[in-house]
Amino acid sequence: MKDNLDSEKLKELEPVFYPRSIAVVGASPNEWKMGSQWLRGLHAVGFKGRLYGVNPSGGEVFGFKIYPNLRLVPGPVDLVIVCIPRESVLDLLDDCAAKKIKAIEFFTAGFRETGEPEWIEVEEEMVRRARRGGFRIIGPNCIGVSCPEHGIPYGPSMLLGEPGSVGYISQSGGHAGKTLEIGSTRGITFSKVASMGNGCDLGSAEFLEYLAVDPKTDIIGLYLEGPQDSRRLFDTIRVASGSKPIVVWKGGRTEAGARAAASHTGALAASASVWSGALKQAGAIEVQGLEELADTLLLFQKVGQLSRSNVGIICGLTDGGGGEAVLTGDTCAVLGVAVPPLTEKTSRRLLDLLGQVGSILCNPVDISQRSGNTQALQRTMELLAAEPQIDIIAVYENADILTKFLGKELAEAMNGIVIDFSHKQTKPVVVVLPPGSLEMERLETECRLAEAGIPVYPSMERAARAIANVTRYFRCRAKSEGV
Amino acid sequence: MKDNLDSEKLKELEPVFYPRSIAVVGASPNEWKMGSQWLRGLHAVGFKGRLYGVNPSGGEVFGFKIYPNLRLVPGPVDLVIVCIPRESVLDLLDDCAAKKIKAIEFFTAGFRETGEPEWIEVEEEMVRRARRGGFRIIGPNCIGVSCPEHGIPYGPSMLLGEPGSVGYISQSGGHAGKTLEIGSTRGITFSKVASMGNGCDLGSAEFLEYLAVDPKTDIIGLYLEGPQDSRRLFDTIRVASGSKPIVVWKGGRTEAGARAAASHTGALAASASVWSGALKQAGAIEVQGLEELADTLLLFQKVGQLSRSNVGIICGLTDGGGGEAVLTGDTCAVLGVAVPPLTEKTSRRLLDLLGQVGSILCNPVDISQRSGNTQALQRTMELLAAEPQIDIIAVYENADILTKFLGKELAEAMNGIVIDFSHKQTKPVVVVLPPGSLEMERLETECRLAEAGIPVYPSMERAARAIANVTRYFRCRAKSEGV
Repeated sequence: MKDNLDSEKLKELEPVFYPRSIAVVGASPNEWKMGSQWLRGLHAVGFKGRLYGVNPSGGEVFGFKIYPNLRLVPGPVDLVIVCIPRESVLDLLDDCAAKKIKAIEFFTAGFRETGEPEWIEVEEEMVRRARRGGFRIIGPNCIGVSCPEHGIPYGPSMLLGEPGSVGYISQSGGHAGKTLEIGSTRGITFSKVASMGNGCDLGSAEFLEYLAVDPKTDIIGLYLEGPQDSRRLFDTIRVASGSKPIVVWKGGRTEAGARAAASHTGALAASASVWSGALKQAGAIEVQGLEELADTLLLFQKVGQLSRSNVGIICGLTDGGGGEAVLTGDTCAVLGVAVPPLTEKTSRRLLDLLGQVGSILCNPVDISQRSGNTQALQRTMELLAAEPQIDIIAVYENADILTKFLGKELAEAMNGIVIDFSHKQTKPVVVVLPPGSLEMERLETECRLAEAGIPVYPSMERAARAIANVTRYFRCRAKSEGV
Repeated sequence: MKDNLDSEKLKELEPVFYPRSIAVVGASPNEWKMGSQWLRGLHAVGFKGRLYGVNPSGGEVFGFKIYPNLRLVPGPVDLVIVCIPRESVLDLLDDCAAKKIKAIEFFTAGFRETGEPEWIEVEEEMVRRARRGGFRIIGPNCIGVSCPEHGIPYGPSMLLGEPGSVGYISQSGGHAGKTLEIGSTRGITFSKVASMGNGCDLGSAEFLEYLAVDPKTDIIGLYLEGPQDSRRLFDTIRVASGSKPIVVWKGGRTEAGARAAASHTGALAASASVWSGALKQAGAIEVQGLEELADTLLLFQKVGQLSRSNVGIICGLTDGGGGEAVLTGDTCAVLGVAVPPLTEKTSRRLLDLLGQVGSILCNPVDISQRSGNTQALQRTMELLAAEPQIDIIAVYENADILTKFLGKELAEAMNGIVIDFSHKQTKPVVVVLPPGSLEMERLETECRLAEAGIPVYPSMERAARAIANVTRYFRCRAKSEGV
């Protein structure tokens, strides 16, 4: 029974994420028009279905014929992408019904979010016509969907990473885009992205229902301002969070934010604490911003199961590890991430390995007295990972002095040790790589580590928050499963 | 009377920051020895006084003659820098007395911080011998001092920025170095830096007394673990904070942090809340980490006086401004930075300028409907700055889509508008420039803005914390002055 419902849900939104053909209404012979750019993006990144341009102007763009009207497109159209002024959308919807399309997404804005009764009414009429026509609406006032596996990039940006396990639903097209941009550097990969804007028809709840049963999605991120379907949403979160982590960032929690959200997606203000309480009860992990959302999705994706957050920290890959040890110890403790003391046996072994003077032989460990010694780094990682009370290893790395004092080659060798160790998968590894003066070298290191599958954070604070979030999820899940 | 005391204090530490000659004990014919690197750094960045190497080996390094003993150095020596094993330091101190040096700094570590009674005793004996010899000790277990104006770089790193107005005292050599590295990218410039390590003789209080009267220092940053002179320190903060902002980060606030601090600088644990209370009462601005310390020093230095924190925010330099407006509004409000509504007159003018559809005409303002329109950006900045209830302008900039959608040239023109406006100094301007996919372009933009004197932050959260800290200082100061 449940399997039937699941496959029905998958089937229902299949034309949204896996359309066989797309028509871009608003593409024009002017290459710089948004619609033209959209068409170009779909073609350039390798969308595998048929593509059409539609515009009363007719003509051609990027080698695509532009049809004066949707009804004149020769083949069937599953998905329509709309970049035209709001005045023309109702007529277009009649064409859509005649063409028997499956779904339509509106980049076009200027409806409920304006607060003008006339345009709120138009938005409502859009939903009625879609119902009658038997198709679904994404948006309006959105960037629509992306499905890397099917060659659908995010909007006209041509942003399309490798397919991955994170599904992402966002009321803000900008935030979804930025999360994808961040992901492309840090190694977060996505199964599906849906920017839903005003969400007049397909809302956060329905997208979540889809992602909850989508076999390609293991982790779900949500950015919400004021969804119109919050009861259904919380019901879905409650069910889905039992099998997939759901990370939620609620925008518009303050007066200043809510004022912007009302203008942005027509969201109604709601009490932040009521939201937090409901999210917690439903089993979602609430985060407080875009960075924490990305940080948490990254750790879920790379590290997977992590039920306890006891961290073993290594500082001082070259000089300066003492202050780093204090900083990382304080930061973790304040955020509820334990930095457990080491067993006496391990401390003794560290003493043999690192020496007393200038070292810190408890946790965090300062290995700076063996600056540039790859074996000492490897041995310290092994010793920490062998401690039963440690669940995850954090390496705190200062790219500036690492490169300046050790030179590029040895700095790379040190990172090679971290990568090799992480591939052994005895315990998960994260790297903290704060910005400084040698930003090029830091960026190169970050990309190399990210490509090797290691989650990299710009500060201990952000790593610790992600660790706390991920373990909170698995702890709650174990509890509710009665484990 | 006070002026006399001030000039006495300045005179007392003059040989520390403005030595006429430096001897590096531990420099050797081996170029890669720490002492040799130190000597090279001093020479390379242009220290103007005399430089000597000292080592029983004799010989030469980087063109400098190495004297077998300090007593054999031909000229007078003001400052001695020590990079030799701890076993030899007591004998060296006798040589220092004979040579009538003024100050000595010990990179050498392995004293109080080891917890070993034998070496704690040696540290105490070092102080006694220095007293008898009439000279002062910096450290041990430190990187010592830097004075850009006098050509003294920070340790062997050759790190030496332009002279500036920030004085910085740190118990951690690593944190001081990292703050300098950050400053070199973000445009924080320093008058003096003192890494004091265990601080057995010259402690945080005495360095602070010096910076408080130093005419080259306007803003003071402090990183402390467990200073041995806290009563004197708080007294100094109380007096000095009336004329110069003092920003304090206390490390070792938690058990994990304190454990590391004890090993690092021999610091004794103290209650975090007692510290916070005492700092507040003394008029210091307490921060919670290296990032917040740098963020706050940067704003103090670039923006100066700022008594109220009402911020006017501009989002959507190209697409995606709606979510940015919600994010920035929420973030500021949560951190106690007000985002006041605009007057009706200004909102009307924004409506004329930006149009209704897709814009946000309250504060934060979303200008994305005039994507790439430099005049619209300039006019919006002017309108916000003209609002009497707004004290500071924040521009939220997404380097990824700015470059992708507008191209490099137009993106640069948009930033040119921000720079020109900031130079008019009607109201201070900060830029928020979060990381994403085009990190090279983002870094270029950050450097350009920083060179133009604009404080740049990687997130609204960090900008807002800095704004809150700076205004808190000026508010408290006005209160205590009875304004």
